[in-house]
Amino acid sequence: MNLELALRMCEASVKQAGREGALVSVAVVDAGGHLVAFQRMDGAEIAGPALAPGKAYTAVAHRMPTADLAPLVAPGGDLYGLAGDRYVCFGGGIPLWDRGEGRRVVGAVGVSGGTVAQDVACAEAAAALWDGA
Amino acid sequence: MNLELALRMCEASVKQAGREGALVSVAVVDAGGHLVAFQRMDGAEIAGPALAPGKAYTAVAHRMPTADLAPLVAPGGDLYGLAGDRYVCFGGGIPLWDRGEGRRVVGAVGVSGGTVAQDVACAEAAAALWDGA
Amino acid sequence: MNLELALRMCEASVKQAGREGALVSVAVVDAGGHLVAFQRMDGAEIAGPALAPGKAYTAVAHRMPTADLAPLVAPGGDLYGLAGDRYVCFGGGIPLWDRGEGRRVVGAVGVSGGTVAQDVACAEAAAALWDGA
Amino acid sequence: MNLELALRMCEASVKQAGREGALVSVAVVDAGGHLVAFQRMDGAEIAGPALAPGKAYTAVAHRMPTADLAPLVAPGGDLYGLAGDRYVCFGGGIPLWDRGEGRRVVGAVGVSGGTVAQDVACAEAAAALWDGA
Repeated sequence: MNLELALRMCEASVKQAGREGALVSVAVVDAGGHLVAFQRMDGAEIAGPALAPGKAYTAVAHRMPTADLAPLVAPGGDLYGLAGDRYVCFGGGIPLWDRGEGRRVVGAVGVSGGTVAQDVACAEAAAALWDGA
Repeated sequence: MNLELALRMCEASVKQAGREGALVSVAVVDAGGHLVAFQRMDGAEIAGPALAPGKAYTAVAHRMPTADLAPLVAPGGDLYGLAGDRYVCFGGGIPLWDRGEGRRVVGAVGVSGGTVAQDVACAEAAAALWDGA
Repeated sequence: MNLELALRMCEASVKQAGREGALVSVAVVDAGGHLVAFQRMDGAEIAGPALAPGKAYTAVAHRMPTADLAPLVAPGGDLYGLAGDRYVCFGGGIPLWDRGEGRRVVGAVGVSGGTVAQDVACAEAAAALWDGA
Repeated sequence: MNLELALRMCEASVKQAGREGALVSVAVVDAGGHLVAFQRMDGAEIAGPALAPGKAYTAVAHRMPTADLAPLVAPGGDLYGLAGDRYVCFGGGIPLWDRGEGRRVVGAVGVSGGTVAQDVACAEAAAALWDGA
């Protein structure tokens, strides 16, 4: 992950949010789950600074989209009971894989502020940019 | 949000609690989720100082009544997995909108101590005062 | 401690702040260190909701004015190393003693937002009301 | 505070860091202390995502540069004992005042990663942009 690319990913999410009619916060984190870039659109809710980095962190920590985690942490799911200050286990966080063998998570993007479907769409816009970079 | 109005909202909630036969804590926060005024009725539980501000913060952060969040954070809900130190996701927190276009959340009221239905009624009494002010 | 008295103490502090030309937050807590009433003056800093209750809590927890704690927690002081999320160890918190034998702390007032001297003066205005009540 | 200006402030700090030969993280927060934009330069330490927003929050909360807080929280200082999860009390955080009467703090910038002097210089570069905007 690098800042230049992280900024472009943020922009891609913000642009997608515009198309969705949503106001979101976007966070990009590195392989350690630490913030590289963050942007909150004007008027987006103050939960974004907590939730967008949380989704990105969670996507790195579990190496899967946070949308896929949702059923796993539900009662009866394999990870029921998963908890922690920084976990956010619903859609909007997407891990980013290394571009060689694709075996290593090198970062993640997290989006919060719209509906879950909008957040996912915005995060995917950023991830698409990563995959194509 | 200002202190004078926040105090009147607290009083409105306390009065409603009297009618409900409940003992509650009331918190009013600003657009940043920070406390402006707080009142705990004599005999109300000590959880109130944590829960009432938590509900008010959550109502600002997600720009919806915390009662509406409850089904969303339940298993199977879109936001299942929402967590955080300050989140309280059941009824009793109500966001307050700006009185111009009504597009901006400028604060919230949170009530805790009675049943959820009582807490909601007390918060609504405060919100009604806001809407009428 | 009761709400009616706590509110009057808040008012006394706010009035004193007016005389001092300061913008403060005032917190009154019970014998358990839990908030009973809180008021933040218009324009007072957002640190107040954390610091004023913190000072009041600390004054109860150590049964002394927080101003007296300051030298004790300094390097070489008896309590050097005292730490914790809710401790605030400089002036502005004052314990309130029972009015019988004066052996039991039944609450405290904490003020934050002005200079330390102003905060102390505002807290003393509230404590005076308590002592005279 | 708005995102467009926050991004330009981040860029101004990053540029200044280049001149200083430092690798920093920059955070811009709103009047509630909540993150609006954040950028971490490639190679900057992972403490940045905690410290830069912390400095910005602290600058808002106490309405002064965090450099001015440093002597106040030192042993013997008026605020010795100031503590809290989000406080960072050394140089690198600068409050931003409204451009009308200059009486209201509307946000802050926080920089972390270089020496304190470098962090301050980078934060000042961002604040200068704000003052000139």
